[in-house]
Amino acid sequence: MSNIREVARLAGVSVATVSRTLKSPERVLPDTRDRVMAAVEQAGYRPNLMAVQFRSRRTGNLVILVPTIANTFFARVISGAQQAAQAAGYRLLLCDTQGREALERQFADLVYAHQADGVIQLRAFDPFEGSTSGQDLPPIVNACEVIQQGRHPTISLDNVAAAKAMTEHLIALGHRRIGLIKGSKGSPLTRDRLAGYEQAIRQAGLALDDALVCHGDFSLAAGYAGAGKMLALDDRPSALFCESDEMAIGALKRIKEEGLRVPEDISLAGFDDIPMAAYCDPPLTTISQPAEMFGEKAVEMLIALIEKQPSPARHVVLPFQLTPRGSTARIEPPYSDSSFND
Amino acid sequence: MSNIREVARLAGVSVATVSRTLKSPERVLPDTRDRVMAAVEQAGYRPNLMAVQFRSRRTGNLVILVPTIANTFFARVISGAQQAAQAAGYRLLLCDTQGREALERQFADLVYAHQADGVIQLRAFDPFEGSTSGQDLPPIVNACEVIQQGRHPTISLDNVAAAKAMTEHLIALGHRRIGLIKGSKGSPLTRDRLAGYEQAIRQAGLALDDALVCHGDFSLAAGYAGAGKMLALDDRPSALFCESDEMAIGALKRIKEEGLRVPEDISLAGFDDIPMAAYCDPPLTTISQPAEMFGEKAVEMLIALIEKQPSPARHVVLPFQLTPRGSTARIEPPYSDSSFND
Repeated sequence: MSNIREVARLAGVSVATVSRTLKSPERVLPDTRDRVMAAVEQAGYRPNLMAVQFRSRRTGNLVILVPTIANTFFARVISGAQQAAQAAGYRLLLCDTQGREALERQFADLVYAHQADGVIQLRAFDPFEGSTSGQDLPPIVNACEVIQQGRHPTISLDNVAAAKAMTEHLIALGHRRIGLIKGSKGSPLTRDRLAGYEQAIRQAGLALDDALVCHGDFSLAAGYAGAGKMLALDDRPSALFCESDEMAIGALKRIKEEGLRVPEDISLAGFDDIPMAAYCDPPLTTISQPAEMFGEKAVEMLIALIEKQPSPARHVVLPFQLTPRGSTARIEPPYSDSSFND
Repeated sequence: MSNIREVARLAGVSVATVSRTLKSPERVLPDTRDRVMAAVEQAGYRPNLMAVQFRSRRTGNLVILVPTIANTFFARVISGAQQAAQAAGYRLLLCDTQGREALERQFADLVYAHQADGVIQLRAFDPFEGSTSGQDLPPIVNACEVIQQGRHPTISLDNVAAAKAMTEHLIALGHRRIGLIKGSKGSPLTRDRLAGYEQAIRQAGLALDDALVCHGDFSLAAGYAGAGKMLALDDRPSALFCESDEMAIGALKRIKEEGLRVPEDISLAGFDDIPMAAYCDPPLTTISQPAEMFGEKAVEMLIALIEKQPSPARHVVLPFQLTPRGSTARIEPPYSDSSFND
């Protein structure tokens, strides 16, 4: 049987090139590949198929599953991930999954198709659920919205503490009726933020009122609609806390349309600190999340899994910061009733 | 030499499964693949390497090169592309290139690595420049910001006409000094929009003034800075036209900080019609682009190239619409000087 040197001679290339062509055809020019393969045929050379085709090799691609590209919070996460991937010599492939499980599975399957080395999921759904058991789980990291008690490494924010801090900020400003416009139904973020809100309300000795909590989905339109409901209440809240800045910006529009002023008539707070938050009128009090760091850390942890580096932490909790801006203020008593001046 | 039936028997699978494992290993479960390959080894079976490893096969992946994920205009383009790709059974891989040529080349090379079937580029740079001649050009479509006289199919807006229409809108409202905050240097979009602005100014018999044109880069911060420069002019403009909504929202903040009102003291116009444009205060007059349609059309044209369908149009121009909102108004004469009342 002929050997690799004969193939190289026939193709007019080096032995190293023949070897590279067989091992990693994607790394050679199409012309070279064609010549080498013609020579392989001509020489009747038979390398070990198993070795050349099925050896475990890396693609250099990382998949990141993004629930919605339209939310600028994720744009910041992606920017951090992109920089970390680049620095480590990986390509980041973004997949707009619209939060749909079928699409998430389909994109995650790029790993099985040997088109990616690992997956970052930014939503609380396991795209490998049911398809693998613990042993052969592909490298995956779950960041931002994480699966509770899941089997993947996670990077998250303490959403309970963050929402509690914002609610306490509003209570400290004298607000007693604080509306909450929630995120998407079923989202662990929303469950945690509601818990933090309720803790703060209870610890301040205030009453929880179902009418003050309404559903949303993190979008501008949901904030606009939610504020409409809150403002229509007989006993309307003096402060609104929205679980995303986009909802807060939507609410801001509605509040102004009702002829009310922020913060003089109603205080307004958001969550995320998207770039637009500092540009709205008034600038938005919000919870700043280290969005870029979510992306960076997720990529670092994923690469550690792929390259089987010792990965110290499986569950990383990133810090938040309450960023007070012009949209929240001390409540102004509507009457000269001294009981409001606390 | 043993045959495929023997391999199937040894592996305990069907002949079809052996065939599929050899042709498309990514389509079989890892366990099955391992069993088949062990049987191939055991039987000493040697399929034609060339046929199994190097046949031209599609990956089902489309690469879209996005200059910046943070700009919400692109989020809309991506949303349209995603839906079209899904409907056609393709996966869309988004690549955040930050407008950097090295990254654009690297992501476009996924096609050479047989990890994608084609490329959509949203910026005026040819990622295959220098690496291929006309004949073996991979499937690629150039949308949004397009290369003039390039070799790729394009989908674009008539930016000259759109900018001219907005400038004429402002002139019709009585504005005589109209500032322009431009997009990124070197961008064909910016060159075309400047041309449209200049045409409208000239055709109205007004004077072009270099002081009224300043550079930007489509970002919030650039709009804020540009408005600062314009407002510092001794003879400041009565209207500002920004080449993106994000710049207009940045400018809006700066105008308000200077104690001026929009539109009473200064009219403000943007470009793109991002979701936030309708939510700012006042809502922004802008040029609406069919952003989703850019994505849809680009995917359709790319798939036509990949699948060698007859592709009717090589250069598609999409329609724009001037969307007047509250941020532009008839100029109010500062003095009772009748020459202003035109």
